[in-house]
Amino acid sequence: MSEHEQIKAALAELAAIDAETVKLGQISSLLHWDLETQIPSGGVPQRAEQLSYLSGLIHDTATQPRIGELLDILTFGGIPVDSLEDLDWRRVRAAKRSYDQDVKLPKAHVEEESRVTSLANHAWAEARANNDFASYAPHLEKIVELNRKTAEYLGYADHPYDALLDRFEQGMTVKTLDRVFGEMREKLVALVQRIAAQPQVRTDFLTRSYPADKQEGFSRRIAAELGYDFSRGYLTTSAHPFTIDLSSDDVRITTRYEENYLPTALFGTIHEAGHALYELGFADEIKNTGVAGGTSLGIHESQSRFWENLVGRSRAFWQRYYGDLQEVFPEQLADVELEEFYRGINNVQPSLIRVEADEVTYGLHVILRYEIEKQLVTGDLAVQDLPAAWNSRMQEFLGIVPSDDRDGVLQDVHWSHGAIGYFPTYALGNLYGAQFTAAMEAKLGSLDPLIRGGEFTRILDWLRGSIHVHGLCKTPAELLHDITGQELQAQPFVDYLQQKYGEIYGL
Amino acid sequence: MSEHEQIKAALAELAAIDAETVKLGQISSLLHWDLETQIPSGGVPQRAEQLSYLSGLIHDTATQPRIGELLDILTFGGIPVDSLEDLDWRRVRAAKRSYDQDVKLPKAHVEEESRVTSLANHAWAEARANNDFASYAPHLEKIVELNRKTAEYLGYADHPYDALLDRFEQGMTVKTLDRVFGEMREKLVALVQRIAAQPQVRTDFLTRSYPADKQEGFSRRIAAELGYDFSRGYLTTSAHPFTIDLSSDDVRITTRYEENYLPTALFGTIHEAGHALYELGFADEIKNTGVAGGTSLGIHESQSRFWENLVGRSRAFWQRYYGDLQEVFPEQLADVELEEFYRGINNVQPSLIRVEADEVTYGLHVILRYEIEKQLVTGDLAVQDLPAAWNSRMQEFLGIVPSDDRDGVLQDVHWSHGAIGYFPTYALGNLYGAQFTAAMEAKLGSLDPLIRGGEFTRILDWLRGSIHVHGLCKTPAELLHDITGQELQAQPFVDYLQQKYGEIYGL
Repeated sequence: MSEHEQIKAALAELAAIDAETVKLGQISSLLHWDLETQIPSGGVPQRAEQLSYLSGLIHDTATQPRIGELLDILTFGGIPVDSLEDLDWRRVRAAKRSYDQDVKLPKAHVEEESRVTSLANHAWAEARANNDFASYAPHLEKIVELNRKTAEYLGYADHPYDALLDRFEQGMTVKTLDRVFGEMREKLVALVQRIAAQPQVRTDFLTRSYPADKQEGFSRRIAAELGYDFSRGYLTTSAHPFTIDLSSDDVRITTRYEENYLPTALFGTIHEAGHALYELGFADEIKNTGVAGGTSLGIHESQSRFWENLVGRSRAFWQRYYGDLQEVFPEQLADVELEEFYRGINNVQPSLIRVEADEVTYGLHVILRYEIEKQLVTGDLAVQDLPAAWNSRMQEFLGIVPSDDRDGVLQDVHWSHGAIGYFPTYALGNLYGAQFTAAMEAKLGSLDPLIRGGEFTRILDWLRGSIHVHGLCKTPAELLHDITGQELQAQPFVDYLQQKYGEIYGL
Repeated sequence: MSEHEQIKAALAELAAIDAETVKLGQISSLLHWDLETQIPSGGVPQRAEQLSYLSGLIHDTATQPRIGELLDILTFGGIPVDSLEDLDWRRVRAAKRSYDQDVKLPKAHVEEESRVTSLANHAWAEARANNDFASYAPHLEKIVELNRKTAEYLGYADHPYDALLDRFEQGMTVKTLDRVFGEMREKLVALVQRIAAQPQVRTDFLTRSYPADKQEGFSRRIAAELGYDFSRGYLTTSAHPFTIDLSSDDVRITTRYEENYLPTALFGTIHEAGHALYELGFADEIKNTGVAGGTSLGIHESQSRFWENLVGRSRAFWQRYYGDLQEVFPEQLADVELEEFYRGINNVQPSLIRVEADEVTYGLHVILRYEIEKQLVTGDLAVQDLPAAWNSRMQEFLGIVPSDDRDGVLQDVHWSHGAIGYFPTYALGNLYGAQFTAAMEAKLGSLDPLIRGGEFTRILDWLRGSIHVHGLCKTPAELLHDITGQELQAQPFVDYLQQKYGEIYGL
């Protein structure tokens, strides 16, 4: 075989293995989807067996030595060979990153992680219910220890936390986060304090009685009008809303209808639809392949939060839809003006629970977790001292302290899943989103008239062409650079908040 | 290793492989469940890819040569070794039967079958829509040819159709079917003719307007009261009702609400719940193993049709529930007496479509298909002559002839799936059911007072202990013999029909 033929054959063989891994992953997603939305309680134990077996199959398929041999043919010194077409070059690069990471982690380590987190997840749920951090602490200690090992296996240049971050946000580092989060933290704390000193907005109407079936009808309508195609998706309910791709043309979302709190489903559905629009937007030639995926959790969150906040919580959006919402809930909203509604759904208020936080305070919840995680990984903070560290930062950032750990350090599920380095991506989504929006507006003009006119297709088309089509073919940093010409920055997001909330609170 | 240790090790290794095959089968079932009940249209093509890939995995797992080696250790001359415990002996026997069948069919043949039936299924749907048998005939010819080859691969003693039958109903033969179906046919034709000569029953109320949500509420209640445990099951809708086991504690059913025909969902739900009760009744020690399954399609059908017809269409059942049904549908049933309702749901009427046929004519639809299938397999009937053969038998058996093939030879999906030898199991279910019922009544006394008193647990307990717990550990013939001391007979079913319908129609 000529070198050209050899490369062609290697590409084809790699694609065939890739197709198997992708299918197994999609099948595993269906098992999770069913587990979260529909399974009868009796089916849960055997479902766990099915999932565990499938994980093993996926691991075996994704780490088979033949992949390493094929990647050796297709790369020199870790860089894909120059003669590849651009798309193939990017596929090979993504496959190499994924394979290199997978094989660095010994199977025994991965299995240990699975065992520890299964137990930890159960222990966390109990500890949270009983407000008993001490019973969870030994599990968390193991998880921190496992993450330290993971960092050593994966390797890093400057900081062990970099290795953990990189799993969720390729290329992200402590150095970058310290810079942008430091700036954010200072400016957000100041903004929260200035807002607190102003007259507060009216929110009483948000907690009136909103029947679930009417919320559902409105949520479905909004999701569809934003561009979520129900012939390629499905909406149902689950305890914790999520988005899941069962294939590149079957991306499903869940929401939760709180009958006494309108914003949960209203903005939760838009948020998940935002995630789904990303997963539904990959170019045809990469659908159902290893590069059909969000390029990072931060970029994913930039999409969900863009639709939820920049679109869904904008005045223009409610100029379009508030009359319709009043028609659905005539009694509940009879005494509420459009402007009152707009301000109410943008109420800024220091609160204890991250997932219920507003746009301004949200980032501070994330930065708190980031700072704590870094210290846990380096050993500068012991697990037993976590509650105190949590509470003192809450006081410092938001001026409030939880009365118990249930509403403090025990509130999030993530650590019990073994995920350290995940939280920062939530705040990165806001930063990316603000930078992308500036680029979009440079191209399309102000978004307000588009939103007010329901021209969501123009917005979605821009996101598709600039972000979605690429899937994993571009890294987060490449996407950001190609779209904005910039590196990651906090200022555009801070500017956005200062302008929006300055106006709402008359600063 | 001693022989004892060697056998113990072989059993453990076989069980481990079995657990993998079972899990893959359950996972495949979930993919089917989702495909039939929930998938958005966009997800269908990739789902087909996932399913096809999974079939390959299952085939590879179930036919790995190591199974043959283990079975060689555990059997002499095809019979499990004597030193095995009874349950192990039965497991090995079932594993051997399954493995021997699987390896007899060459992979190329199985793949050819998959290709041909995918196309045939599509062609059938088109042909049925267009009432165009000629366009489907070439596909059916291939399917008949493939089934002939399957029979040769599997082997048979007397008749090639025996090999096909055996796949769905272990041990069943043309010899046995000719005997019982011959007897049935003669007696049913006579009964239908005698009924036709009598005054007919009132049925107008069955086609009134019955809102789906109210049907659903009633269906769920009945299913639960019969013993279908919703913590181990799930009920939803699909185009063609079915039952599917996603594990031994997660067996789901579907139904279809026809707003202008009450019996469809009412009896369809009970029918599927009957299938599900079987799958939910395996002994704990065989749950989620290769012997956790209905022992044959005929035995399965005996359970579904027992609950649907012997319970659900009995006078005693409606003595219990008719008042409740009238409360749910007060206007629709205001002018209908209990006795009129009972007779209406048991209306006997020669009709064209098998799935809509009553208890008396149903068997004739099946025997017609059986006779035709036998001739197709032997070559005594050419595919092109099928419509004429169909119509002449309809005339002979039921005195009616379809005006087009859509309501005749094109009505069933089964052949397009490649299934020849499947139809007889539908009628066998009725025969088994009548024989089982006689044994049950010998133990519990007449079922009428139990049904009238809602003591379904006593009935279900008998079925569980006698039939369900065994799963595949007993063959259909063993079950029948152990419960009734008899071989398969047509007379008990014919007696049941003659008594029930003799009374309804005043014969």
